Amino acid sequence: MNKWTPISIGHVTFQPGNFLLVAGPCSIEGHDQFLEVGGEVQKLGAQALRGGMFKLRTDPDSFQGLGREAFNIAKQVKEKTGMGFISEITDPRQVGDFYDVVDCYQVGSRNMHNYALLKELGKVDKPVLLKRGFSGLIKEWILAADYVRRGGNEQVILCERGIRTFETATRNTFDLNAIAYIKKHYDFPVIADPSHATGDSELVTPMALAAVVAGADGLLVEVHQKPENAFSDGHQALNFSQFATLTDKLKQLLPLVDKQLG
Amino acid sequence: MNKWTPISIGHVTFQPGNFLLVAGPCSIEGHDQFLEVGGEVQKLGAQALRGGMFKLRTDPDSFQGLGREAFNIAKQVKEKTGMGFISEITDPRQVGDFYDVVDCYQVGSRNMHNYALLKELGKVDKPVLLKRGFSGLIKEWILAADYVRRGGNEQVILCERGIRTFETATRNTFDLNAIAYIKKHYDFPVIADPSHATGDSELVTPMALAAVVAGADGLLVEVHQKPENAFSDGHQALNFSQFATLTDKLKQLLPLVDKQLG
Amino acid sequence: MNKWTPISIGHVTFQPGNFLLVAGPCSIEGHDQFLEVGGEVQKLGAQALRGGMFKLRTDPDSFQGLGREAFNIAKQVKEKTGMGFISEITDPRQVGDFYDVVDCYQVGSRNMHNYALLKELGKVDKPVLLKRGFSGLIKEWILAADYVRRGGNEQVILCERGIRTFETATRNTFDLNAIAYIKKHYDFPVIADPSHATGDSELVTPMALAAVVAGADGLLVEVHQKPENAFSDGHQALNFSQFATLTDKLKQLLPLVDKQLG
Amino acid sequence: MNKWTPISIGHVTFQPGNFLLVAGPCSIEGHDQFLEVGGEVQKLGAQALRGGMFKLRTDPDSFQGLGREAFNIAKQVKEKTGMGFISEITDPRQVGDFYDVVDCYQVGSRNMHNYALLKELGKVDKPVLLKRGFSGLIKEWILAADYVRRGGNEQVILCERGIRTFETATRNTFDLNAIAYIKKHYDFPVIADPSHATGDSELVTPMALAAVVAGADGLLVEVHQKPENAFSDGHQALNFSQFATLTDKLKQLLPLVDKQLG
Repeated sequence: MNKWTPISIGHVTFQPGNFLLVAGPCSIEGHDQFLEVGGEVQKLGAQALRGGMFKLRTDPDSFQGLGREAFNIAKQVKEKTGMGFISEITDPRQVGDFYDVVDCYQVGSRNMHNYALLKELGKVDKPVLLKRGFSGLIKEWILAADYVRRGGNEQVILCERGIRTFETATRNTFDLNAIAYIKKHYDFPVIADPSHATGDSELVTPMALAAVVAGADGLLVEVHQKPENAFSDGHQALNFSQFATLTDKLKQLLPLVDKQLG
Repeated sequence: MNKWTPISIGHVTFQPGNFLLVAGPCSIEGHDQFLEVGGEVQKLGAQALRGGMFKLRTDPDSFQGLGREAFNIAKQVKEKTGMGFISEITDPRQVGDFYDVVDCYQVGSRNMHNYALLKELGKVDKPVLLKRGFSGLIKEWILAADYVRRGGNEQVILCERGIRTFETATRNTFDLNAIAYIKKHYDFPVIADPSHATGDSELVTPMALAAVVAGADGLLVEVHQKPENAFSDGHQALNFSQFATLTDKLKQLLPLVDKQLG
Repeated sequence: MNKWTPISIGHVTFQPGNFLLVAGPCSIEGHDQFLEVGGEVQKLGAQALRGGMFKLRTDPDSFQGLGREAFNIAKQVKEKTGMGFISEITDPRQVGDFYDVVDCYQVGSRNMHNYALLKELGKVDKPVLLKRGFSGLIKEWILAADYVRRGGNEQVILCERGIRTFETATRNTFDLNAIAYIKKHYDFPVIADPSHATGDSELVTPMALAAVVAGADGLLVEVHQKPENAFSDGHQALNFSQFATLTDKLKQLLPLVDKQLG
Repeated sequence: MNKWTPISIGHVTFQPGNFLLVAGPCSIEGHDQFLEVGGEVQKLGAQALRGGMFKLRTDPDSFQGLGREAFNIAKQVKEKTGMGFISEITDPRQVGDFYDVVDCYQVGSRNMHNYALLKELGKVDKPVLLKRGFSGLIKEWILAADYVRRGGNEQVILCERGIRTFETATRNTFDLNAIAYIKKHYDFPVIADPSHATGDSELVTPMALAAVVAGADGLLVEVHQKPENAFSDGHQALNFSQFATLTDKLKQLLPLVDKQLG
């Protein structure tokens, strides 16, 4: 098992042997929506909450997130639940604004090579969840993490979320080899995002568990109260019942890989 | 869980809920070598034995297998161990010759599109293990299986062995999504080959177990008494001790996925 | 400019500085159809005729070619036009049967790794057009050519026909870099198939000419009298008027690359 | 031929039928170096000058460009040569600073999905050269261009520079199909960068010309007085003699595609 200096996300300490379960909707759509999801995933075992505020969408006509309106919602839900909050940042000019609300900055797949952003995040004292570029080589991903660490911020969590290949039956190809490879060769924590990696809620649970067995130190999972009505990516979000099934199986599985939740 | 008509490989019946463990060396290198591996993997739980006789090598200068000399070795080892035998066929003219020695024909990755071979195998009454082409779409793989079934042979086992992508840190990219996807959409048994999918014996065990959790109905694993001396692909073969570790963990894991060995 | 021993295809000698133009329908659909296409492409400058007899189709329900019925048609059209004939072989057992009718054996993309077939073609005294596997590395393609040459047959023509990538807007990604790379590093003639490489008749002409400038020594182009009615791949076949435009532009372009037709 | 509103880069007007030749070193290394290259490429027909100021390097230890020191150099060389200047921008906070020195902003391959940057460039009145992401689908590339145009800036030039595939013999796979496809379906000017697309100076000239025949409206070529001593990417830069050969052949070729330099 590889090693890393403990990382704090809100009240949670993430260190070797601990398993980090992050869940929440693709986007924050409103106060009640976010609070309901937050309360439910917390009850089922999630230790931190995810939710997009500024969505990075390929199509300029797609829903772009609530933007600054989401800041207050996120703060209120954090206060009510006591959970740490992770959200994606896409612009180096927003690092300061995000600082007041997030407990961990997420760098998305399309920004893995955004060195201006990575350098800025190297200067803060909060953790950075660095997703793999969908066409990033493992060695490029590690070098991207180095951009953050060079700035003085050692708290980098890697997140495998699927790569782009010739196969189109699933949204991406989930490269679990990459997780096992990194656990063998490097001292980074690595978590997995089965929601983007599969793009299909019915595949999320088996693939989430497969990632755990491959060596993942945590999961980042999209959960929504009504996936069919979600503003974005509803086809890959679990509903509460599906998330409960996932967490049940996860709890059975973790002892076999010598890890524990929280 | 998907369904399929029970498939016989030697004395073993492979049906939904059963887990098929196939192990053995990349190539049959000699009688004593093959018997030793066969006896050991059998003791540790393998139900069938693999071993290449005619090796399909990209480089014409590489070791091409013992060829017909391997037929007698395989027959003797089968008799002594009582295990079913699986070996790769690359030429439609050899279907008859193989019939006397194999209990299951293996079609390799580079022959997934070899329709002349697939049609010939559609006429026999022994099972066919059909590996995915390293660049085969899932739908092409299913169509290849249909070539066999059209001929009247319903006993097709699919085997995911990794696909070719831009990533070169591992030998292939193990597409476990494909296993979960096929289990959801089709009624074929699917097994996984973590040896080719990773190309690194240290990654074989975690990735083999990840494949099981993703839904694989079996494993095809390369095992050698001295991987460092193997005639081919030694870097990805498990030694006996590593295979024992794998089977130990596999036995712990199978109850969680409602399957049992044999 | 690289070098190779002159290759004979029917009455045509293909040697460095000569440009080889091969055209014809995807499939031989009947005597009159094939003769009409043959006469027309000959008039416009084609030196050899292509036409599928046994089609290698991914889907077992697709049109599989006229099979042996096409042998007589091909012989008659060869006799009437005097053109050399190239057709795809997919089964090592058919090498002898094909010998009477083809002037050049074509090995298709899905058979680049079919070593049983390649070895058999190494024994004949007619040229082999070896298409690149759609996921074949350049070095694997060269090794496949070596399988043929090891058998004693030096007459190998390579053919780039597009590779499989993440891009799906075009049928394949036409890897013209590969042509320039091979012309720099190896002594093989290389031709290009813009029909499969683009999958769109409107893109065939510019991409055919681009291949010539990249260094291609010839072209393999699909032409049909009524592409919209073709039994297979009609969307990528040129009609006679489009082929006339292509040959006009080709004749203007060849002097700039120091090559001449025929 | 597709259409677009004329685009001004310095004194040059780039409109349908004109061919845009941009050349220069990978990085600005110093005043004399940049002036010498600028003077030479101008003499040979280049209409605009490229040169990196802030280099986007995967490895944080690689040469990162002269940064702000390059601003003055670029201004001086522009004044002395009268050529337009194109340079890569990687950070939305630098749009204003660049405005004083560049005549066209270049968005590099790793920033095609950097929507914060694209939106900022949508507000300026200077053209944007938008390189294709090395794993960007054509449709994503067009949507990225739409991000710029939505902001009010219609002056977008697309640039194909090679995509990432399984083939590693060349640095990238030059997707010339994409150029022909865009010329058929969209009204954007498209230029080609054969330097990054091949990664080998010996392949640059044939592939540059192939791009022209495929439909490219211009070229972006790396040129250096001593490629073997270049601070970055010297293996793919042409020396002056090689660039002279390229421009000679280009001038012969352009009439065949109904275009003219300048």
